[in-house]
Amino acid sequence: MGPLHVQPMNFLSDTTAPAHPKLLEAMTAANDGFAPSYGADPISARVEARLKEVFETDLKLVFTHSGTAANALALSVLCPPHGAIICHDEAHIHRDERGAPEFFTGGAKLLPLKGEHAKIDVALLDDTLNQWPQDFVHTPPPRVLSLSNLNESGCAYSVDELAARIGPAKAKGLKIHIDGARFANALVSTGANPADLSWRAGADSLCLGATKNGALGAEAVILFPSAMVQFEALQIRQKRGGHMAAKMRFVAAQFDAWLADDLWLGLARHANAMARDLGKGLSQHGDVELAHPTDGNEVFVSLSDADAQRLQAAGVGFYRWPDGSARFVTSWCTRKEDVDAALVALQQA
Amino acid sequence: MGPLHVQPMNFLSDTTAPAHPKLLEAMTAANDGFAPSYGADPISARVEARLKEVFETDLKLVFTHSGTAANALALSVLCPPHGAIICHDEAHIHRDERGAPEFFTGGAKLLPLKGEHAKIDVALLDDTLNQWPQDFVHTPPPRVLSLSNLNESGCAYSVDELAARIGPAKAKGLKIHIDGARFANALVSTGANPADLSWRAGADSLCLGATKNGALGAEAVILFPSAMVQFEALQIRQKRGGHMAAKMRFVAAQFDAWLADDLWLGLARHANAMARDLGKGLSQHGDVELAHPTDGNEVFVSLSDADAQRLQAAGVGFYRWPDGSARFVTSWCTRKEDVDAALVALQQA
Amino acid sequence: MGPLHVQPMNFLSDTTAPAHPKLLEAMTAANDGFAPSYGADPISARVEARLKEVFETDLKLVFTHSGTAANALALSVLCPPHGAIICHDEAHIHRDERGAPEFFTGGAKLLPLKGEHAKIDVALLDDTLNQWPQDFVHTPPPRVLSLSNLNESGCAYSVDELAARIGPAKAKGLKIHIDGARFANALVSTGANPADLSWRAGADSLCLGATKNGALGAEAVILFPSAMVQFEALQIRQKRGGHMAAKMRFVAAQFDAWLADDLWLGLARHANAMARDLGKGLSQHGDVELAHPTDGNEVFVSLSDADAQRLQAAGVGFYRWPDGSARFVTSWCTRKEDVDAALVALQQA
Amino acid sequence: MGPLHVQPMNFLSDTTAPAHPKLLEAMTAANDGFAPSYGADPISARVEARLKEVFETDLKLVFTHSGTAANALALSVLCPPHGAIICHDEAHIHRDERGAPEFFTGGAKLLPLKGEHAKIDVALLDDTLNQWPQDFVHTPPPRVLSLSNLNESGCAYSVDELAARIGPAKAKGLKIHIDGARFANALVSTGANPADLSWRAGADSLCLGATKNGALGAEAVILFPSAMVQFEALQIRQKRGGHMAAKMRFVAAQFDAWLADDLWLGLARHANAMARDLGKGLSQHGDVELAHPTDGNEVFVSLSDADAQRLQAAGVGFYRWPDGSARFVTSWCTRKEDVDAALVALQQA
Repeated sequence: MGPLHVQPMNFLSDTTAPAHPKLLEAMTAANDGFAPSYGADPISARVEARLKEVFETDLKLVFTHSGTAANALALSVLCPPHGAIICHDEAHIHRDERGAPEFFTGGAKLLPLKGEHAKIDVALLDDTLNQWPQDFVHTPPPRVLSLSNLNESGCAYSVDELAARIGPAKAKGLKIHIDGARFANALVSTGANPADLSWRAGADSLCLGATKNGALGAEAVILFPSAMVQFEALQIRQKRGGHMAAKMRFVAAQFDAWLADDLWLGLARHANAMARDLGKGLSQHGDVELAHPTDGNEVFVSLSDADAQRLQAAGVGFYRWPDGSARFVTSWCTRKEDVDAALVALQQA
Repeated sequence: MGPLHVQPMNFLSDTTAPAHPKLLEAMTAANDGFAPSYGADPISARVEARLKEVFETDLKLVFTHSGTAANALALSVLCPPHGAIICHDEAHIHRDERGAPEFFTGGAKLLPLKGEHAKIDVALLDDTLNQWPQDFVHTPPPRVLSLSNLNESGCAYSVDELAARIGPAKAKGLKIHIDGARFANALVSTGANPADLSWRAGADSLCLGATKNGALGAEAVILFPSAMVQFEALQIRQKRGGHMAAKMRFVAAQFDAWLADDLWLGLARHANAMARDLGKGLSQHGDVELAHPTDGNEVFVSLSDADAQRLQAAGVGFYRWPDGSARFVTSWCTRKEDVDAALVALQQA
Repeated sequence: MGPLHVQPMNFLSDTTAPAHPKLLEAMTAANDGFAPSYGADPISARVEARLKEVFETDLKLVFTHSGTAANALALSVLCPPHGAIICHDEAHIHRDERGAPEFFTGGAKLLPLKGEHAKIDVALLDDTLNQWPQDFVHTPPPRVLSLSNLNESGCAYSVDELAARIGPAKAKGLKIHIDGARFANALVSTGANPADLSWRAGADSLCLGATKNGALGAEAVILFPSAMVQFEALQIRQKRGGHMAAKMRFVAAQFDAWLADDLWLGLARHANAMARDLGKGLSQHGDVELAHPTDGNEVFVSLSDADAQRLQAAGVGFYRWPDGSARFVTSWCTRKEDVDAALVALQQA
Repeated sequence: MGPLHVQPMNFLSDTTAPAHPKLLEAMTAANDGFAPSYGADPISARVEARLKEVFETDLKLVFTHSGTAANALALSVLCPPHGAIICHDEAHIHRDERGAPEFFTGGAKLLPLKGEHAKIDVALLDDTLNQWPQDFVHTPPPRVLSLSNLNESGCAYSVDELAARIGPAKAKGLKIHIDGARFANALVSTGANPADLSWRAGADSLCLGATKNGALGAEAVILFPSAMVQFEALQIRQKRGGHMAAKMRFVAAQFDAWLADDLWLGLARHANAMARDLGKGLSQHGDVELAHPTDGNEVFVSLSDADAQRLQAAGVGFYRWPDGSARFVTSWCTRKEDVDAALVALQQA
């Protein structure tokens, strides 16, 4: 895989990474004669069956090409236009999707809450649930709690941490959405199985992302049994949003290869390990400190301007984050030697 | 390409056809190391440069995976929420996109007009332009004229036919949108060059579709100079609609291969030729008659129930159309022997 | 009431007429101390009780100040964003509300049908119901049939004429909306009772307008039992649309006086009689012909430019209509001498 | 005015108060013959001229019946669908309008900020302006700062306090909206003149509310010169939202009487004085403490359950507020003896 690494120390984003070759091979294999359009093809059916095994439950799903589309579609069938969605103040759906949730829901309100390491603070959640009534005609009622796992600080909610937030929300009648753009990374990190980290924890819908973990562009909006009644509405909105691809087999084929032989978990395990190594190495240098635990494939550190410039001069790619930290993202194709080279670059004062 | 033809006489839709192998090869070649996300990659830039040559003009564009998304995004930057879009009563944007134009525009109104062979009747267009005022606060003003070329009856508007409709619309200040899901087929059929059939005819935006003509899922919303001021708005809406793919290089790569060496025109030329042969053959049988001229890759014929059943029994795939006719669609991979076999099946009473 | 008639031959619109004094008196009487806000006042309750008697059924309602708001709110709880509303091509909701139905429904599609005298043609309705499927994910399904009674050509649907249209629509599962901005005029004209011309004919919702018939600004969105399940949604949308007035008692008071002693019917009866006289008189002049039957308080006639200028020079107010005819509207306060004076003016060549 | 006071110690809300008799008299006087519809009447013109004098500037305006409608319409012409509106966490537009701003803007995002006494904290505002970029395609850019004056804790922003917030916002290019549902109360309280508290402070639009201060239902959306280019858009949205009343003269007449002889300021001055007296009296009792300064016609106090029950038993009307305090609202018709009687009731243990 040498030629893939034209920029070996690229830690900018897992979206700049290439796709895993097996997924492209599966797409090529899927390019075999005619196939029903719009998701009625046999590969889509096979993926659905496989996901039922993976999640140990009945479920329904639609595919999209982007995580923004997946989140917005899921939220649009869980929250009415006049309702509110509770999320973390740094949630991707709040800050990084240009208002797609508002657009697809028809104007639902996002209620952003603070909390350390991008985990919603439980006390603030309780306050919000108590202050925003469900049945007062003047006030948008919270109808959905959205949690990102892996979250925007690269941290994973454990099963217990999910319970502490989902419990009070469900007691008020809210639906639960999980933004799983990096769900595989959270699975590997927590050691939980897919069911325990989703529907058994109370999730009604999970957006399962493959794009950041080896796919070309493949996401799935999964409705668990508690939300399956919304499947027809989901398909309608998928179509109306321009996300019902004609030749859907090529998205399905990516998932097919990604799930086969637990490739998805292996890729996430590798990315997580690279991030752990990178985080550990960075934090041993001078006054560099980890800003958040490294639960997945993202490392956030405090970094002096001098250190930052030295790294960039050496060709190490990363981003300054809005909170002042520096973010490094690893991926399925990050190599140990790239991590080591970056750490060496940092040392060379 | 034998294995592609598991259902050799499939004329159901060009969306059931496979992709041309060269596009998959280009995607595989594009899977080479890291690349900037969201359309900032070098392949996207190359496609933009190539399209400027093809259309002999400056232009801006964004990619999408689906034609519905492309049309809806284009219309959303041409028409305000309180305006109206004139289209044919059988237009794809009116009947086949589950209200995506209404969704993306924020509630614009579609004004459907009749007209033979799915071409908007010029007199009805004039009436509508006169009856629906531009500046009366109570009435949604027509702000866009949308024309499909190739259209929904498989017919092509010639340059003169475009002028007869675009002229009066532009005189009232309307913007012009062309749904070019099968634009290549219209180009081949009319013999016009891309510029003459788009911006030189007055089009402000063209949705150029590759999916039905050899791609896996690749469409481009093109803004010509008269609409380029809307480019930032278009990108914002692309993002907000979930259509700004992270790994955009893989959509760009499809266009890159499709446009190279005029592959796109060759594929369309072949599909058109197959349709012409099929149409001619069908119409020589019994009382079968062409419902519309066969300008592109679609054949519409009157077909008795007995004939229809005979064809279906022989494994020929086609659809009954809402107007009572039967629609047969050819594609880049339709073979002459498939056409001949279908015609033989029809004869065997 | 002399001072009201500063422009005695004003037939421009019933919206330019003053309010009936009894309604202002009722508002003044309602201005008595504190009252619960947002519709929880006792006058609102009294109107609800009175409307149940008038319509001989249980029902739910909300008030608005404008007919556009009433129609849009009613449609928004009957039609999903991805559905379609069948209406006449000249319907107020289609041509005269700046897309309010599209706005409040979140982008539903209006399907305009032709038909003589602004009555939807039954055969065209059947075609549309057959061509637009209910369960095809790609196509917006018709979900509502909207009928105006009195309609936009000043004609009334009889009970039988309603049945001919509502029957096939309900057979496909559509909901029925009646735009009753001039419902009282239709009642008087047809001689039908309120129940027979609404819910017994199949209507799920009626927008009952008082503004054009003596009120300052008062409309009611009525949900009959078949749609009462939508009442909470209707209230939410009323609030969200800015139509839940804080001091609602003043809208309720208008309805209270309007319904008392059948004032509403008396006012409509007078307006209709004036229109009939005016129409008869106009059509006896030269080549003037009635364009539509005069069922209510609107007269549409063909009028030469010379006749039109003569009338205008004499101070007779009316509008040229988009179809080329001239529209004269009478109201509760039109006097017989105004009608006579207008006819005299026409004669004086 | 005895009969108005059927519930003399009603401090529930200024929306439960009656209208000032002069406004009803003006409506009755306006009911004089025919008048142009939809705001083209001479009373509307007179109010516009008067407001130009009051605000010492050119301006444009539309009327609505409700404050929710006024705010939503103003915001809809200041903020694009994909933008964000910064407001206080307790703002009426955020908590009490059922998402009307989101609905009318087409899905703009509200960014709620904390701050003592319902005044936006300046440091938090700066953080938000810095963290939320203007030109990053993925993130909704803040485009409007909305300030309520009088605000939701009954406090007034002084001219200097406005400057401290509007300055940094305008430096980033934001538009400024003032929710002036109780603007007259803020004027009286601060002693500022209307211009200094609005456009000279940087406001682009002011929603001037009369309903809570003596009107039946009358609000004005004012566009100052910096936003007058949006007037046509505002009228279109007023119509599309169902807020362009046919007989607009009756809303205009309310404003006409309200502004005459500075009645509006006199009514506010009285209400403020009653609140000051009530607040002072309440806070002298036991452990009752003012939760916020009493700048206008609202008093917020800490109140033990025992005290609250005693007041309610005596017939004193007020509301428990979400933050645990008790809110008492005075109005133009609150009498000194009602205030005194409530204070006596509190003392009688």
